[in-house]
This record gives sequence, C-alpha cells and structure tokens, in this order.
Amino acid sequence: MFRVTFLGTSGSTPTTSRGMPSIAIKYESELLLWDCGEGTQRQLMKYKVGYGSIDAIFITHNHLDHYLGLFGLLETLKLSSPSPRTISLFLPWGLDADGYHFAKTSKIKEGELYSGKGFGVFAVPVKHCRGSHGLVFQEETKLKFHEEKAHSLGLSGKVFREIQEKGKVKTKSGEIKLEDVTWKKTGRKVIYSGDCLGDDSLLEVSRGADLLIHEATFDSSMKSEAIERMHSTVEDAASLAKRADVKKLLLTHISPRYSDHSLLLEEARKIFPATEIAFDGLIIDI
Amino acid sequence: MFRVTFLGTSGSTPTTSRGMPSIAIKYESELLLWDCGEGTQRQLMKYKVGYGSIDAIFITHNHLDHYLGLFGLLETLKLSSPSPRTISLFLPWGLDADGYHFAKTSKIKEGELYSGKGFGVFAVPVKHCRGSHGLVFQEETKLKFHEEKAHSLGLSGKVFREIQEKGKVKTKSGEIKLEDVTWKKTGRKVIYSGDCLGDDSLLEVSRGADLLIHEATFDSSMKSEAIERMHSTVEDAASLAKRADVKKLLLTHISPRYSDHSLLLEEARKIFPATEIAFDGLIIDI
Repeated sequence: MFRVTFLGTSGSTPTTSRGMPSIAIKYESELLLWDCGEGTQRQLMKYKVGYGSIDAIFITHNHLDHYLGLFGLLETLKLSSPSPRTISLFLPWGLDADGYHFAKTSKIKEGELYSGKGFGVFAVPVKHCRGSHGLVFQEETKLKFHEEKAHSLGLSGKVFREIQEKGKVKTKSGEIKLEDVTWKKTGRKVIYSGDCLGDDSLLEVSRGADLLIHEATFDSSMKSEAIERMHSTVEDAASLAKRADVKKLLLTHISPRYSDHSLLLEEARKIFPATEIAFDGLIIDI
Repeated sequence: MFRVTFLGTSGSTPTTSRGMPSIAIKYESELLLWDCGEGTQRQLMKYKVGYGSIDAIFITHNHLDHYLGLFGLLETLKLSSPSPRTISLFLPWGLDADGYHFAKTSKIKEGELYSGKGFGVFAVPVKHCRGSHGLVFQEETKLKFHEEKAHSLGLSGKVFREIQEKGKVKTKSGEIKLEDVTWKKTGRKVIYSGDCLGDDSLLEVSRGADLLIHEATFDSSMKSEAIERMHSTVEDAASLAKRADVKKLLLTHISPRYSDHSLLLEEARKIFPATEIAFDGLIIDI
C-alpha cells in the first residue's frame, strides 16, 4: 500500500467543491498528513482515510489556510477514547501547538524529518513565506534477488540468508557475491511543493519522482501576479515536471477564480502531458 | 425575511453529515452568525447563505469547536475584493481576533449586544465554561393599526399620521386615542442556548419564544455525564421548552455517539411534542 489521497485542493479560500489544502499518504501501516487546512478532519472521514491512525503531520508553511484544521483535528483526537496514539507534528516557523500530551512537536527544517518503516520524509526550503518548505517522501532502496539467477547458481534455503548477511557465499561452483544475484530496486518518491514561487528550488530533489504534487495558483498569463505573491503558475509547475523528468504531475492549490479547469490542464499538458488536476477525494496509488 | 439556517449541528466533533456549530440568522437585509465552528465558511457557501454579507458574529463560549471557523472566515473576508464591509464580532471571555481591520470586536456580556433594524440581540449567562452565554434575537414590538376600526371611526389619510405622532386626534365624533385604533404586535423571538448545563438560566427569557434552539448533547439516561460536563440532556431541553411555553424546539449539538436520532426525538416529544432535531442545511422561517 502506497496511496496518496487528496483531501483538499483549493488555494487560499475554499469552494463548495474544493476544501483547504491537505494530502494523506498511506504507506503500508503508516499514515501521514501533509498540510491540514480548515475542515481536514471531516475530509478524512468523508474519504475514509481514518483520522485516528495518523502517525505524523507536516505543515509546509505558516499560512492559516494550510494549518487551521490541525487544531480541530487535535481537539478531536484529544477527546477520543481510548487515548490517541502518539503523533509527530512537524511545524513551520512561527506555528506552535501546545497542550496536546499525545503530540510530539518539532520544527520543520531542511533535511530528514521523519523516518518510517521503509521510508523517510525530507524537507526542502522553497520561497513563499518565512520557513516555507516542500516535502519529499522517499521510499528506501531495496535489494531484490534475481530468483532465477540465484537458483541457476545453486543457491537455495539457508544460503540465501548467508549471502545477505555476509555479502558472499562459497558454493561447489565457487564464490558468489551478493551483487551477482541481486538488483537494487530504487525507492519510489513523491514530492509536494507546498506553496512556492515557481523557481528551481525543487528541481534536483524532484528528478525521476513517481509523483510531483505542485501548486498552480495562477494560469500562465498571470506570471507577474504569481511572482508578486510568491506562487507558481501552471507553466512553472509543468516546466519543472518536464525538466525533472517525473512520471506524473498533479496540480493542486487551484484558485477559486477558475471555475473551468480545462484551460489550466491544456496549458500544462502542452509542456508536460502526464499532468492531471487534483480534486478532493482523488486517490493515486503509487 | 426572518430565516434561521442551521449550518452545523454536531457536538464537539464533526461527522460526515454534521458540521461544527453555527447558525445563520437573516432578518430583512441583515445577516448574523451565532457560533462559527470549523468549516463554517464552506457551509455558508454550500447552503447559499452568503458569507460576504455578514453583519455580526457572536461566539457563545471559548471552546474551539464553536469558534475555530471564525479565523478561516475572517481570512477569506480579508482576501475578498472589494474590501469587506465592517463586521461586528462579539467574542467570549478568553478569545481575541486581532489583525482584521474590518472587524469591530467586543466582549460578550449580559444584556443587549447588538441593535439591528427592527431587532436586538441579547446575551444571557449560562453555566458551561467561563464566560458562556446563550443568545436571544428579539424583534421589536410594532404598533399596528386596526384598519377597519380606524376607518369606521372616520380616520383616514393625514389623520393616520397625526394620531401616530400626537397619540390622539380630534374628529367630528370626538377624541380618538392611538390605543383605540391600534394593537401591539409582539416581536418574534429566537433563543439559542449555546452549550449549557440543563438548568433554568434561560427559562424567563425563553417564555413564549417562537423558536428555542437548545443543545442536547446527551440522551436523558446520561444525566450524570451531562452534569459533569456541563451539558444538557434531551429531557432538560424539552422540559425547558414546555415550561417556557415556546412555539417550537430545535435540538442541536447532537453527539456523534448517536447515529440513530429517532430515540432522542421520541424522548423529547414525550415532554414537548413540537420538537425537531436540527440537521445541517435546515431552514426555519420564523
């Protein structure tokens, strides 16, 4: 299970169809939230993600539309019976959440924030407001056996374990090294821009990502407004996706000014065809 | 137009069908909000009440489930263009909302808080947490002419105006006093308990109300829990409605523990038949 659920996809203010920003990531038994705008706890119920099992919440920056729902969610968890499990909160500059005994809070800063079973979550500084970060979910690279090759070399049973532990093993036909019978499965990667100016802050970290979730507050004709407000245009996001050679681009933080999204999608796909526009409730299995 | 719209009717935590507490009151051209729980701005859109035209917001007490949405709503108003109209905020003990140039804040205290065109809003202390108040919408009493009686006494045209101004008028058939040809139309009244212990704090003010909106967090078997948490049972609310001889009782702040509300309704109607259970989006025209 490696599932991304979009809980809220509007920018700045909600609409009847789009809630405030929040993204749930379920990886095996762990559940993470990226941003937690107003109404997130209800979206978690509505889209059956399960708010009681959240392990960690990351808030990309200190703007109210990205964090207000955190306090509603924490209050609900506080009232829950039995007592809620411990939850790790990663908060941006200027935001605190005191008074919740079950919450372990840290400040968001560049580098690894959270280490889960088989993955890590990293933060990358972006330009929007003080302390803004993008987030990276990086699955660990795993060593996989070429089963056929191993069998053809006479490996089986206990020897499998030995070669993993020692890195090599002696057989009748000679020494076999671990790398002779294994291959590296590169970990999957999901990136979330948070709110950010459309620059190259996320270019390196996005290379080859399975999914880039990028804000696209303005259409491409509004580049000067985007710069002024430190947001991205559709073109900024699509150009980044193309240059970083990601597998898929999902545009989010869609401004309520756009009731028809086909134009935004058209703009993006001219540059990067594997683009979709996120909507509340959208599920992407990675 | 005198319309009450229930925007959120859940107690403490939301459900997929019930949002956090908020009630909109539209009286002619004025729009008031009573409580503003998380998600209220979206409920205002969903139920087409129109968040841009709110004149005043009243928060009954300083518990997060009753006020969190205020900050989302104020942020949205702040971003709106043209600049939002001035809004009066009546906040309970311990709650502030600074930094909104278009908001005029006052503390809630016993007595008249707000004077609209043809009505007033009053606060009455209730027992729940520090600074908790119930709210009263009181329409002004109006003087109405008995048109037939006035005509039969020979009053018409300018004389109508004269009798209103002077309180009496001389005609061929003698002096006629204002009270001879008028009757008082008692103003309509809507009461909202906020969260409160089920006692008699609201009894006097509720007498003869057109609508009593009362919290009913617990069923009647849970009286001790209700007392411990300073909430009301269904029986508390229904008994108050009966003794105050109100026209209609709407139960709200329904706990998520009740998925089937028919039992709550049955309990209430045994005591006070003109009871309904509020739901999100319910409109009551007074």
